[in-house]
Amino acid sequence: MASDIDIAQAATLQRITQVASEKLGIADEHLEPYGHYKAKISLKYLDSLKDRPNGKLILVTAISPTPAGEGKTTTTVGLGDALNRIGKKALVCLREPSLGPVFGVKGGAAGGGYAQVVPMEDINLHFTGDFNAIQLANNLLAAVIDNHIHHGNALDIDVRRVTWKRVLDMNDRALRDITIALGGTANGYPRQDGFDIVVASEVMAIFCLATSLDDLKQRLGNIVCAYTRAGKPVTARELNAHGAMTVLLKDAIQPNLVQTLENNPAILHGGPFANIAHGCNSVIATQASLKLADYVVTEAGFGADLGAEKFIDIKCRKSGLRPDAVVIVATIRALKFHGGVKKEDLNTENLDALAKGIANIEKHVQNVREHYGLPCVVSINNFTADTPAELKLLQERMAALGAPVVVARHWAEGGKGAEDVAHEVVRIIEANEGRSGFKFVYEEAAPLMEKVTAIATKIYGAAGVSADAKVRKQIAELQEAGYGHYPVCVAKTQYSFSTDANAKGAPTGHTLNIREVRLAAGAEFIVMVCGDVMTMPGLPKVPSAEKIDLVDGKVVGLF
Amino acid sequence: MASDIDIAQAATLQRITQVASEKLGIADEHLEPYGHYKAKISLKYLDSLKDRPNGKLILVTAISPTPAGEGKTTTTVGLGDALNRIGKKALVCLREPSLGPVFGVKGGAAGGGYAQVVPMEDINLHFTGDFNAIQLANNLLAAVIDNHIHHGNALDIDVRRVTWKRVLDMNDRALRDITIALGGTANGYPRQDGFDIVVASEVMAIFCLATSLDDLKQRLGNIVCAYTRAGKPVTARELNAHGAMTVLLKDAIQPNLVQTLENNPAILHGGPFANIAHGCNSVIATQASLKLADYVVTEAGFGADLGAEKFIDIKCRKSGLRPDAVVIVATIRALKFHGGVKKEDLNTENLDALAKGIANIEKHVQNVREHYGLPCVVSINNFTADTPAELKLLQERMAALGAPVVVARHWAEGGKGAEDVAHEVVRIIEANEGRSGFKFVYEEAAPLMEKVTAIATKIYGAAGVSADAKVRKQIAELQEAGYGHYPVCVAKTQYSFSTDANAKGAPTGHTLNIREVRLAAGAEFIVMVCGDVMTMPGLPKVPSAEKIDLVDGKVVGLF
Repeated sequence: MASDIDIAQAATLQRITQVASEKLGIADEHLEPYGHYKAKISLKYLDSLKDRPNGKLILVTAISPTPAGEGKTTTTVGLGDALNRIGKKALVCLREPSLGPVFGVKGGAAGGGYAQVVPMEDINLHFTGDFNAIQLANNLLAAVIDNHIHHGNALDIDVRRVTWKRVLDMNDRALRDITIALGGTANGYPRQDGFDIVVASEVMAIFCLATSLDDLKQRLGNIVCAYTRAGKPVTARELNAHGAMTVLLKDAIQPNLVQTLENNPAILHGGPFANIAHGCNSVIATQASLKLADYVVTEAGFGADLGAEKFIDIKCRKSGLRPDAVVIVATIRALKFHGGVKKEDLNTENLDALAKGIANIEKHVQNVREHYGLPCVVSINNFTADTPAELKLLQERMAALGAPVVVARHWAEGGKGAEDVAHEVVRIIEANEGRSGFKFVYEEAAPLMEKVTAIATKIYGAAGVSADAKVRKQIAELQEAGYGHYPVCVAKTQYSFSTDANAKGAPTGHTLNIREVRLAAGAEFIVMVCGDVMTMPGLPKVPSAEKIDLVDGKVVGLF
Repeated sequence: MASDIDIAQAATLQRITQVASEKLGIADEHLEPYGHYKAKISLKYLDSLKDRPNGKLILVTAISPTPAGEGKTTTTVGLGDALNRIGKKALVCLREPSLGPVFGVKGGAAGGGYAQVVPMEDINLHFTGDFNAIQLANNLLAAVIDNHIHHGNALDIDVRRVTWKRVLDMNDRALRDITIALGGTANGYPRQDGFDIVVASEVMAIFCLATSLDDLKQRLGNIVCAYTRAGKPVTARELNAHGAMTVLLKDAIQPNLVQTLENNPAILHGGPFANIAHGCNSVIATQASLKLADYVVTEAGFGADLGAEKFIDIKCRKSGLRPDAVVIVATIRALKFHGGVKKEDLNTENLDALAKGIANIEKHVQNVREHYGLPCVVSINNFTADTPAELKLLQERMAALGAPVVVARHWAEGGKGAEDVAHEVVRIIEANEGRSGFKFVYEEAAPLMEKVTAIATKIYGAAGVSADAKVRKQIAELQEAGYGHYPVCVAKTQYSFSTDANAKGAPTGHTLNIREVRLAAGAEFIVMVCGDVMTMPGLPKVPSAEKIDLVDGKVVGLF
C-alpha cells in the first residue's frame, strides 16, 4: 500500500470553510483561516452554543503500546468517518502532534493509511502555531524569573528552588540537565536547570484544562514557579508574567478545525503526552465538539492505564465531561508481543503467546468496566497475518468479561472498514442510555498518597507504592499546604502497567516507586514521576529527521 | 494622542484579499490566508513575475539611535502611504518584529502613531509563525549535533568545537553561557554552550538571503556547525539535517502581506537585528516587492553605519538589488541628545548642542553619498518642541553636504504628513535616473582583514581595527580555508559609530576591536563581533511583559 504521506498528498481536500458550513453549520465569520484547509473556530461563537444539548462522547484508548503498533489514532479517525457513513453527525477530536516524535522515532501522528486527518504535513509541522505559543508563554515566565533574581530579587527567590523549567518542542537530551547563567555577573545568578519538551509543560496542561480565556489567565497566574528562601511559593502572578502569557495564548486557545480524508470534520487542539503529562486534548475543544455533533470520538494517549485514567480523573473531574462509551484498540500482533513473541515472528500464528498476551487487554478492559464504570468495545485493527483461530481466542476471552470484539479495517479501507465498530459503539451507547456507572479511581477528598496508591493498586495492579523519605516529605508538605484535593498525574513508562518497560502482559505485585513530585498549581494537579521516565526525550541513533526532506517542493519522509 | 495600540485597534482594516487584489493585482488563489488580515504570497506566483520590470527601491535608514527616538519604521510606513497618496503605486517592505524587544524594552515594532502596519498585535506576537519555524530549524540542527556525538560520533566532532548555538525568541540572559548534557551518560557528552536570540541565528540570515527554496536548502546544507578533532569543518549536510530544516521553513519562506493603517499593502518578511546580524528583511520579499509596485520603501536596522552598510555590502552584493535613493531619518531631539543634552532637557531649544550633535547625521550623510554612492533625503520627524531656528541650523548644515531636509508629520497625520518627503524622494530618484553611483564599501576580492578595516575606517571613522592574536589567527585561517571572498558582518553596539555606546556624535580616531569571529558558511558571510555586544539580550528591570495583558479579550500594554 502507499505510504501515509502519499495517501495524504493524493487526497481531495475540501476548503475548510465548506467542511465547517456543510458538516457543522459554522458560518465563515466564526472561522479564522490558516491557509485554505485549517481554521480556528472563534471562542465567542463556541460560547454561543452553550445551551445546545451535548452529543455522545466516545473515548478511544488502547492496550499498553508495543513496537508492533496498535493504531489508536487511526481507529479514532476511522470510527469518526464510519459514524458519518452510517448516518450519524460525528466529529473527531484529537490532540495536535509534537515535533519531538515527528523528528524522532515515530514520524507523523495524524492517523495512518486511509484513516488520517489532513493536511497531514501542516498538522505534523507547525499547524496553527499552538505549540509555539505554549513554548513562548512557558519560556517568558522562565526568563522573567531569572530576570527578577538578576535585578535585585525583591521576592527573595531561592535560586536552588526555581521549579519552572524552560521547554522546546524538540527531542533534545542534552538539555535535560544543564547549568545556566554562567559567565559572570552580567548573565545572572548561576543555577542548575533543565529543559522539558513542550508537551510536558504545565502551560500545555493548563491550556488543555482551561474552560475559558479568563480561566486560562487565572490558572497561569496560579502557577507556582519557585520558592523563596523562607520556603514560600512564588507564583507567576507575583512576577506579573501571567498577563503577557495569556496574550501569547489568546489565539492558540481557539480550537483548530481540519478534516479527515473523507472530508469529515476533525478538531485538533492541545497535545500533552500521556506518559509525562495528562495526555488529553483540550477541554474547550471537547466541550465545543459535543455542541457541534451528535457523536464525538476522542482519544487519550497511550494505554488505558495512562491516558484514559487521566482522562477520567483529571480531565472529566472538573470539566463535567462524561464519556458514554470506551473503545479499546488492540491488534493480534501487539497482544502476541505482550505474550513474549519477538517483533520479527509476529506474522506467525501463536495461540499460546496470544493467550498469555491477552492478559494485557483483560486488565485494561477490567479497569474500564470496573474502575471507570464504562461500557467498552474492543476494536481489533486487522492485519493480513491474523488467523481466525487467534481472533476466536480473543473473542472468547473478551466475552467472558462482557466486552464485544469487532474487527476494523479502516487503515486499508477508510471509514467503510470501521462501520462494524461504529454500529457496535452506537449499540452499546443506546443500551446504556440513562444508566451511567461512571466513576473516578479515587475521590477528590482522599489524601495524595491514597490517590496514587489507588491508581497503582487498582489500575496498574501494583502491590503498593514506594518513595524515598524526601519524596514522602514533599508529598506530606503539599498535602499540608492545601493541595491535597488535587488529582494526581502519574508520569511513567507507557510500555507496561509497571514502571519496568519490559514487563509485558499484566504484571502484578510490583511496586510503583515515586521518584519525584511536582506541584502544578495552575493545572491543578500533582505530578508524580515514577520510574525512569524522561520529561525531555532524546533522538534515536538515526532520527526520522534524516529522512524528512523537501524534493521538488514536496515533503518526503514524513511517513 | 492615543497610544499606538489604541490607534491600531480602532483602525478599519480591509480583508487582505481585497488589498492584494485591488492594490497589487494578486488573485485569491496565490494567497495563503492567516486569519482575514494576513496572508502569505505563494513563491510560485512570485516566480511568475520574473519578467516584469523592477520598481524603484528606496532605502530608509537613520542616524545612530538614541533613547529620544527617531522613528525609522514610522517613516518607512508613512512614506509608503504618502507615495500612494501622491498617485504612485508603492509598497512598504519591512522586517518582522522579534518578541525579544516586544517583551523587553521597546514594546511593539510595527511603526507608531498614524504610521503603522496592522494587525498590530498579530504582527508583534506570533504573526505567521516565521520566527518559530526559524527557531525550530536552528534547534533541530543543534539536537542532531549532540545526538550524533551521543550515538558514537562517527564524524569525530570535537565537543569543544561545536559552534552551533541553540536559539529562542526571547531576551534571556541566563542562557548566554551554559553547560549542557550534564547528569550522566544518558544525557550525552557535557560541553559548554549558549543560546542566542532567534534574530541573531544564521538560519535567520540564510532565510533572508536565500533567493529560492532550492537556494535555501543549499545554504542550510552548507552551514558549518562544528569542527572535527582534526579541525575539519562539519556541515549540516553531513548530518543530514538540512532536508528537515528546509521542510520546517517551506511555508515561512513565502513573504507575508499585511496593510498600513491607510489600507496600503506592506510586506513583512524575516527580521535579523542590525547590531548582531545583517539587519535587513528577506531578499525574496524585496525582489518580489519590486515586481509588484513602482516604488518600494524598505528599511535596514539601526543607523546607516550598521543596517545600511550591511544592506549594501551583504544584501545587495549577491542579490543584485540596487537602491535608487536613501532616506535618512532623524529628529531634532535625537540630534540634541547626540550633542550631549540629557533626555529630560530635550524639549528646550539648544542650538549649541544641536550644532554639536549634527556631527552624527553629517557622518551618516557622507557615508551614504560618498561610500555607498547614493542620493539621499534627510527626513525629520517633527516634534512640537522643535524650533524654527533649530530646523534652519540643520538645513544649512545639510545643504552644505547636498542633502535636502524635509519635515515629516506622518506620526500625527498619517501618509498626508509625509507627502513632502514623498515628493522629494521622487524628485531625487528622477533627477538621478540612469546615473547610479552605487558602490560597495569594499570589494569581494579584498582579504577579510581589509574588509573589516574598510568598514571601520570609512564608515565608523575609526583609526583602525585591533584583535587578539587568537582572533587574528582565526581570521587568517578562514581566509586560507577559502572564505576570504565572503563579506563581513560586524556585530557591534548600535548607539555609536564606535564600540563605546556612550560615544555620541561622530567620534573619530577610535579603534574597532574584534572580539570574536564566526563563520556563517550558509549565510555566506563572516561575523565579526566587536566590543561587548550581546547575541542574547537581557530583559530590563521592569520588562514590557509586565504591562502586557489581556483585559476583556483585548490586548493592552503593547504600546
